[in-house]
Amino acid sequence: MATVISSFCTSLDGFVARPDDSVGPLFDWHHSGDVEVRPPGYPLTLRVSEASARHWREMIERRGAFVCGRRLFDHTRGWGGRPPLGVPTFVVSHRPPPADWPARTEAPYTFVGDLESAVAKATAVAGEGIVSVSGANLAQQCLRAGLLDEVWMDLVPVLLGEGIRYLDDVKEVRLSDPTIINGAGVTHLRYRVER
Amino acid sequence: MATVISSFCTSLDGFVARPDDSVGPLFDWHHSGDVEVRPPGYPLTLRVSEASARHWREMIERRGAFVCGRRLFDHTRGWGGRPPLGVPTFVVSHRPPPADWPARTEAPYTFVGDLESAVAKATAVAGEGIVSVSGANLAQQCLRAGLLDEVWMDLVPVLLGEGIRYLDDVKEVRLSDPTIINGAGVTHLRYRVER
Repeated sequence: MATVISSFCTSLDGFVARPDDSVGPLFDWHHSGDVEVRPPGYPLTLRVSEASARHWREMIERRGAFVCGRRLFDHTRGWGGRPPLGVPTFVVSHRPPPADWPARTEAPYTFVGDLESAVAKATAVAGEGIVSVSGANLAQQCLRAGLLDEVWMDLVPVLLGEGIRYLDDVKEVRLSDPTIINGAGVTHLRYRVER
Repeated sequence: MATVISSFCTSLDGFVARPDDSVGPLFDWHHSGDVEVRPPGYPLTLRVSEASARHWREMIERRGAFVCGRRLFDHTRGWGGRPPLGVPTFVVSHRPPPADWPARTEAPYTFVGDLESAVAKATAVAGEGIVSVSGANLAQQCLRAGLLDEVWMDLVPVLLGEGIRYLDDVKEVRLSDPTIINGAGVTHLRYRVER
């Protein structure tokens, strides 16, 4: 059975981006160490601490499928045809793909009309792997709908003061104690949602 | 030199209380273990994990002074004359103490007109100990004014969805990687503010 997670780099005051969508110092830890990680589908090489490298290697090894919203898909132009971690990607959208959408991609993209169906389809192809739900708004919808198995936070020691929140307007939810991976410039926390 | 900190039990979405000021499950970890801790000035015995007991014992050992706002002082009726951890307490307030304020108290209360002076006076009496600033609003004012040395969070694995935020409306601030104490039902995180 797949594990449905959402995972974000988050400031200590809960923001995943500044008001203008920029991430400021939230990704500084991608260059805070000397262990190289090259995640499939990412256009960059990370240099992180050994602890964060372990965290990344597990994500890579367990990768199964990816669910995102249309806004993120359009914003990244479908990651130029290479979705994050190179996995089958399910885009929640009522609209058809862009007319200029490239025919050749590394992994199939599927446009699905509603979130629940997208998560179900992603779970079906992910096997025992991880289904990663991206976009703060989509993660919140999943939490409200009871679709999320785990909440992951890469907690960055910075306060942004304002911006876009990871966990906004959710209902009351209890979680497990976290698994903690203590990186450099980041603390990786993984919580299981209790049902 | 004293260390000026703020310390709160915080939900994963950043709340220190529900909208009605109740704390819901945020203090459940005070009864999540079998190690007894009796903090001076607290009207209760905690039963926590060994890790959380270490956290408490350090707070008790290093206790120096306490700074709070008038709202919290009035809400608790001055903790019945016994301030948290029994330390000298500085109340930021322009108004005089209540007329029925008890004469006998375990520790002196001092009413100070402004936050900066209150922190300075607290620091002066705390020696090498901890000056704890309480009240989310006061902690935010300290952060904005550069008066805080450390931010402590007792991160509780629950989402509240709404309520009163610990770190609201602060400016961009960088912090150190945290010291992590992994309790049961709580993760104690301590960050040093970088100046």
